[in-house]
Amino acid sequence: MHSPTAYIKIKKINAGAQTEVDDELAVEEPLEIQLAWQDDAGHRSSTVQKNISVTMRTPGNDAELAAGFLFTEGIIQHIDQIQHILPQQHTTLVTLAKGMVPQLQHAERNFYATSSCGVCGKTGIDAIRTTPVFTQPTGELVVPATIFYGLQNSLQQKQVVFESTGGLHAAALFDIAGNCILLREDVGRHNAVDKVIGAALQNRWLPLQHYILLLSGRAGFELIQKAVMAGIRVIAAVGAPSSLAVQLATEYDITLIGFLRNDRFNVYSGAGRVKV
Amino acid sequence: MHSPTAYIKIKKINAGAQTEVDDELAVEEPLEIQLAWQDDAGHRSSTVQKNISVTMRTPGNDAELAAGFLFTEGIIQHIDQIQHILPQQHTTLVTLAKGMVPQLQHAERNFYATSSCGVCGKTGIDAIRTTPVFTQPTGELVVPATIFYGLQNSLQQKQVVFESTGGLHAAALFDIAGNCILLREDVGRHNAVDKVIGAALQNRWLPLQHYILLLSGRAGFELIQKAVMAGIRVIAAVGAPSSLAVQLATEYDITLIGFLRNDRFNVYSGAGRVKV
Repeated sequence: MHSPTAYIKIKKINAGAQTEVDDELAVEEPLEIQLAWQDDAGHRSSTVQKNISVTMRTPGNDAELAAGFLFTEGIIQHIDQIQHILPQQHTTLVTLAKGMVPQLQHAERNFYATSSCGVCGKTGIDAIRTTPVFTQPTGELVVPATIFYGLQNSLQQKQVVFESTGGLHAAALFDIAGNCILLREDVGRHNAVDKVIGAALQNRWLPLQHYILLLSGRAGFELIQKAVMAGIRVIAAVGAPSSLAVQLATEYDITLIGFLRNDRFNVYSGAGRVKV
Repeated sequence: MHSPTAYIKIKKINAGAQTEVDDELAVEEPLEIQLAWQDDAGHRSSTVQKNISVTMRTPGNDAELAAGFLFTEGIIQHIDQIQHILPQQHTTLVTLAKGMVPQLQHAERNFYATSSCGVCGKTGIDAIRTTPVFTQPTGELVVPATIFYGLQNSLQQKQVVFESTGGLHAAALFDIAGNCILLREDVGRHNAVDKVIGAALQNRWLPLQHYILLLSGRAGFELIQKAVMAGIRVIAAVGAPSSLAVQLATEYDITLIGFLRNDRFNVYSGAGRVKV
């Protein structure tokens, strides 16, 4: 497996003085997610293979990334629909279980895709919405405000690659007692979330109705949508949410917290789950 | 035009106390970029219209965003190839000049697109590379280190929407004396760069060989690629660069600066243009 960091020689300029030093960078590399399945429509069964996506990611946990991406994009609905995942250096091939046909129409994108949006390339504005599998949350959920106070600190301690490069986003799952269950880092914030959800999917933890999703940066529409797909009901971001993120969180009755610091944060929706 | 910010009521939690306050959010809304051109291939001329992209953007400067996106993706090569841009609330229609056929094969993406990568949906890993128009820089360029010292401060003073929401990325063009020529803010960092390059394209400033592109956050592969397309030779980022960003900057002989602070920064490539 490729390393998530790389070393190069750089020049440091500091108050007019320059030094040459070794520096550690977050690795960014393209990964092509490929999907293979049996097509039984014709005279006899044949294998179809399709390139689904090229994403710029930090190497590591590529199988989780592929599984999470397919799930949060609505292309698969359950881990049992995957027979096998084969991660290689620049590609990850996901082979679906027998009889399984991917829901490609959910994510149909017939045209050009754009930057940094994650909703890119879909055919029309309505198509940016995915359809969640989990719509019936079971039981109430209340989290004491004090639990949130410790999350950012806990995240920082565990963000080892960010620590050395300053160049990675993180997403993490915490239980409602505030314990960090898993954390993933990536140059792309959406990849970090896909890796977390993919790992949870592989562990059969979905729906994640009793976990907190922590985001190291800002909360945009698409990250909320990915969380919705996984059944997450509480999201806390260190950065700011966007207007559409708040709108979507409100619509799906998700508790959305932003600007999380040691002992303070803002609640943008679903304040009823936060006990002060 | 829609406002770049929106107001909602939120709950602020601070050391156990809660208050309800009005809060200002960065607006995130989908924009569909549409392209229309004359097709003279058939028996008689007809107009072709195609949806090119849906991007999540902060409303404002949508014509610049559309022009910049089409240019940095290699779909058009010159502002004269655009006859007319019609920005509306959720769509922007770009009509090409007579006889102009868009270079859609450069950006062909036949399949699913992913998150936050900007290279998403292209058919295969090689296809993430665009072909720059400007390959022959004219004249040497040397920038004193002291010019860079003031840039971040100058950016912060002008980032008005970020100031009020904490939720926007910025991209800005500075001349080599350190004067801010134009600045754009957006929830998507790639959109901010497309707006800057789109504005410069409309002003007929390209190639931007004597300007510094300043990025408020991290520098990933795709932002460098967009800068390459516009002929930019000096990029300074407040955040970290990725490995692939450094690789691309080195390949195109671009000066790439990261972790820019008041009187210090790192030079990742093209150090010859920085005079200490």
